[in-house]
Order: sequence, then C-alpha cells, then structure tokens
Amino acid sequence: MSDALQKLWSPIVHQLTPYIPGEQPKTHDPIIKLNTNECPYPPSEKVLSAIRDRADEALRLYPDPTSEELRHTIATLHEVSVQNVFVGNGSDEVLAFTFQALLNHTDPLLMPDITYSFYPVYCKLYNINHKKIPVGTDFSIDLEEYNQPCGGIVFANPNAPTGLLLPLEKIRHIAERQRECCIVVDEAYIDFGGQSAVSLLKQFPNIIIIRTLSKSYALAGLRVGYALAHPTLIEALTRIKDSFNSYPLDRLAQAGATAALKDREWFDIHTKKIMASRQDLSAALSHLGFEVLPSFANFVFARHKHQKAATLSAELKKRGLLVRHFSSPRIENFLRISIGSEQDCNALIQALKTIIEQ
Amino acid sequence: MSDALQKLWSPIVHQLTPYIPGEQPKTHDPIIKLNTNECPYPPSEKVLSAIRDRADEALRLYPDPTSEELRHTIATLHEVSVQNVFVGNGSDEVLAFTFQALLNHTDPLLMPDITYSFYPVYCKLYNINHKKIPVGTDFSIDLEEYNQPCGGIVFANPNAPTGLLLPLEKIRHIAERQRECCIVVDEAYIDFGGQSAVSLLKQFPNIIIIRTLSKSYALAGLRVGYALAHPTLIEALTRIKDSFNSYPLDRLAQAGATAALKDREWFDIHTKKIMASRQDLSAALSHLGFEVLPSFANFVFARHKHQKAATLSAELKKRGLLVRHFSSPRIENFLRISIGSEQDCNALIQALKTIIEQ
Repeated sequence: MSDALQKLWSPIVHQLTPYIPGEQPKTHDPIIKLNTNECPYPPSEKVLSAIRDRADEALRLYPDPTSEELRHTIATLHEVSVQNVFVGNGSDEVLAFTFQALLNHTDPLLMPDITYSFYPVYCKLYNINHKKIPVGTDFSIDLEEYNQPCGGIVFANPNAPTGLLLPLEKIRHIAERQRECCIVVDEAYIDFGGQSAVSLLKQFPNIIIIRTLSKSYALAGLRVGYALAHPTLIEALTRIKDSFNSYPLDRLAQAGATAALKDREWFDIHTKKIMASRQDLSAALSHLGFEVLPSFANFVFARHKHQKAATLSAELKKRGLLVRHFSSPRIENFLRISIGSEQDCNALIQALKTIIEQ
Repeated sequence: MSDALQKLWSPIVHQLTPYIPGEQPKTHDPIIKLNTNECPYPPSEKVLSAIRDRADEALRLYPDPTSEELRHTIATLHEVSVQNVFVGNGSDEVLAFTFQALLNHTDPLLMPDITYSFYPVYCKLYNINHKKIPVGTDFSIDLEEYNQPCGGIVFANPNAPTGLLLPLEKIRHIAERQRECCIVVDEAYIDFGGQSAVSLLKQFPNIIIIRTLSKSYALAGLRVGYALAHPTLIEALTRIKDSFNSYPLDRLAQAGATAALKDREWFDIHTKKIMASRQDLSAALSHLGFEVLPSFANFVFARHKHQKAATLSAELKKRGLLVRHFSSPRIENFLRISIGSEQDCNALIQALKTIIEQ
C-alpha cells in the first residue's frame, strides 16, 4: 500500500534529503543540552510579560500580515528603513524564501563546502544549481575564490559549525567585484563578537543579511528571523511569502520579538556573558588536549588530539550531556559544543576529563 | 536602481501574483470586522491560560520539531493515528506544502473556478499545471466533472467564498473513481454544520483533509492548521517541511492549539452560536432583498437584487463595517459577510437598510 501511494508524491519529494536538526530530547531527566546553540539563559522578562499581555481575546483576529511594529523596531535598531526589513517564521523560513526568491539562476550558487547544512537542502527543494567551494585546511572561508561567474553567493558569518569569523573588509572586497548577483550573509551568530555587514548595505544593494532571535535573544522557541536588504530584494521575498502564507508570524511571536529587540540591556549583559564563558570553555578544552577553532559564535568547534569525536559524543550522552557531532568528511572528528551557563560548561569539562582519562 | 536590481530576482518571482488577504485595519477606531471570517467570540480561556503558562524560560529552547503533543491531541479528536497527522503554521502553510508535495504532476490539477483564491497562487509558485472546472450557475461544485485524467483534485468543503456544502456521498463517489491521484478536501469551514470526509480516509488513502484553528477555534492570530491523511502522504509533507523549516510551530502555538482542541465544550457552544446567527443573518438579508446562498460556513455569500456589491461594500466601509468583495467574474456582485456576534449582525443589517433605502 505505502509503496503504491508513493506515486502520488510530486517528483521533487523523492529527491529530498531533509535537514536533520539537533536532538530535542523529550525526556524529563536532567539533561545538559549543548547541541543546538540555544541560549543558556532565560529570555528577557519583558518578552515573557509582552507575550502574556497578548494572550488575550485578540487572538481570534489574524495577525498583522506585514508585522509593521516588529519591522519598525528592527529598522530602528539597525538604522535602516522599514522597507529594508523582512520578517519570517525563524531565520530558516527567511533563508528558504531567500533561496527561492533570489538564488535560483542559471549560473551556480556558490557556498562553502563546510557551512550551515540547510543550504544544500534548500537547493534540492528549489532545484538550484550550486557549487561548493572548499574551505581552507584551517577551515577558513577564502572569499577570493568566490570571484567567479555565479548566480549568487551564500555563507554564514561567523560560519557554522566552525565559528570562524570573516572580517568585514573581506566581505566588502568580494562585494566590490560581485555586483551582479545576490550575496547572502547569514548572520545568525554575529552578535557574539562579530562585525555585521549591515554597514555595507547602502553601498552594496545586492547584499542581503539574515538574522535570527533564536541565539542572541534566547528565543529559539518563538521562531522569529529577519532579513535586511534593499527594498527591491525585500520585494522578492515578500512576493514569495504572499504566495505561500500571508501570516507567517503569529500575534505572540510579533509581540515577543518586538519586546526582545527593544530590551538592549538584557541583550548586552547576556551576549557578554556568553562571550566570557566561551573564552573560559575554550581555554579549558585546550587544556584537556582539544584543538579549539577561534570562535565568534555561541558555540565552539573542537577536536581532540587522540580521542574520536563520535566516541566522545556518545560517552557524553550517556552522562546526560548533549553536544553535536557531524559525520561529514573533514569535520567528523570535531564536536560542536554550545556555550552553556558556567555550571553547564564546568559539568562538560568534568565529564570530558573523566572520559578522556579513562 | 530598483529596476536594475530586479535582475537579481529568481525568474519565478517575476511571474507571481500573490494572494491578497482581507484587510486587517490598523486603526483603533471602532470597526465591525466581517471581512476575514474570524470568530466574533474570544478563544477559550483555557487557551489563553495555556499560552500564559508557556510564556516561560523554556522559550530559549527550540520547540518540538514534530509537535508530538499537539498531533496526539488531533489524532485523538479525529480517532486516527498520530502518523495520520501533519501540523503547520496555519492551514495556508499546510496547503502550500500539500501543493508542492502532492499536486505537481504532468496531468493538470483540477479545481473549481470559484474557490479559495490562494489555490491558483500556489500553482504559480510551484509551477503546477492546473485546470479550473466551472462551478454551476447555482455556484455548486459538480464532482462528476472531475472524473477525467488529472494530477490531483483540490476543493474546499464548504466551498469559499460561496459557503456551499458538498454532501459526503458526492465525495465518496468521485473518490471511488479517482484512486490514482491525490484528492485534497480543504475543510477550513467544516465545523459549522458540514459532514467531514475524515470518515473516508480509511477506505481512500489518496484523500487528504486540511483543517485550521483560525475559524471554529477563534485562533486566527495563532496560526495553526493541520492535515489528516495516510502516513505515506503525510511523509511527503514532512519531507517538504524538513527541507524548508524544521520548527514551523513555536512553543506557544503548540500549547495554545493543544488546549483549544481539548476544550470541546467551548467548541460546541460557539460553533452552535455562529450557526444560529447565520440563520438569523441570512433571513434578515433575504428580507432586505438579498439572494443568500445556503451557507454551511461562518460567513454568508449574498447579492442584492438591485444594488451593486462594490457600492454596498464601499458604503459599509464608510460606516465602519468591513465586508469582503471580490471583483472576479461571476461573483463580482456578491458580498462575503463573516458571521459576527448578534450585535455585529444587527449593526450590519441596520447599515445596509440605511444604504439601500437611501
């Protein structure tokens, strides 16, 4: 029966290899979750109270389809116009729209071979010709190699899962030479010490920046992301969105996200805390014999001199500690470890110590 | 600048004609909103309290990507298995995935010429070959005309914007003869007196049913919809979803929707109230000289013997009353009027009286 029914699938479905997110355990056992780059701290109390306030009878009404208030708040924060802002149901939806709206051309879309592994999934979904450019032996992206005929460029900065940052000048340099295609800078992790490419938008109207509230605002559970770009590029995203779902952001998400972006004090304190913990965790891991890539994200990417990452990951899991391990070539011996609270990081180091010294 | 930048758009973007939802006024003036088929009553207090409870520090964590609790609740309600259930960010997202996953074949997708106007928009977005079958002069769908080679069938039951209901036997009859393609029954409005096709799922594994919480649960602002179908069809939707956005439903939407579906008392009281108001409103409109199609939805579709719908709609708007007018051929002289509270309906009738008797 099942096999016969598969012929009802659109042809595209047979070709998909969906993205696999980090495990979200459903157990109530105490678990230290350092596998999906969530923030270890609760979101701002102002966010929670804004959501509670909006849990009212107005939920019977459709939300604002254009999320004006939220987009206005984002525009103010980044000192751009509201016409430069597009919002979506998590940056994954914003990325999906971007791939469909701006990156499907005859020439191949260029991306690093090691980067957010959702990018090639979108390419399959929308049948986008793409070409992977290998990162260096030090895992860095060399944007000079992206100076070739292409239908678009996409990379994460800082990159995932490496955490490595590209300096703004390198982005400016490739943007100066690639003016005829869209350059997508996925800044999911930019708030942890990186320099944003927002300042390049005025000069380079072909750049589009993608952001999320999941990491630096501790709102992975609320699903809000956004894009910043020239209004003509935003218009392409809006056309796709309005041909897909008029109201991607519910009333509570719009209210919570607006409150989050306005609370600059919470943001400053907590991003600084995470950067400080990152430094401590990196040092402790190095001390245990790990090579730790210099991270500008809310995670570190590290490999041990003698221990296999798959083994370490499995041993940590036995002890209630989740980290992320990718079995892809070149990085199969790395662990991606989210920056937890001080207590989480200490627990991780203690567990690793025990495992390694066994 | 703008025109030059349009060449960065993927070719598909130039071809789109997005869906235009009913107006969501941003004014704070008192308005009677009968234009987008929202529920006139606040959602269940249990929904609001479930949401407030979940506005907590767990928002820092990603939501359950498979919405197990919500899907389990839906499965229990419809007496199906959890493997028969798919949830999404409003039924519009579920429909979009359905069009992409199950309706893109060489033979044309069949749909009524007068139906939910988002269907042809999805076809453009995914480049789906489709064919519109004219509804009768009485605006009814004759499913006998769908017994022809096709890549799928989609219709709304009750249909939008007519409100007309197809009896279950007619659906069974076409399903008996069209077993090699997917039959999508969009039941957005089924809870207001219609008979659901859920009972046909066991016998016809090619049927897929789409539902929303926007209408009969008063949760348009929360964005939750779902599909019911054989697990092999659900698998196609899941593959698309997992290639697009791992977490389409945020934590609050999952919690609120679960609470809503569990509160059967609220549901029974309020759907009955709306059906009673529909009867009263239909009678009052007939009395004013309107022809009112027999509606099984939370709206009525009516045309006046002498007055133009566009004029009536504009005059009502001047008086703070929003109704929906479609300028499409055949229905350009109809108004679609959502069933409001008793007070709203009375205000509408009074306003129409004044306008007509002017």
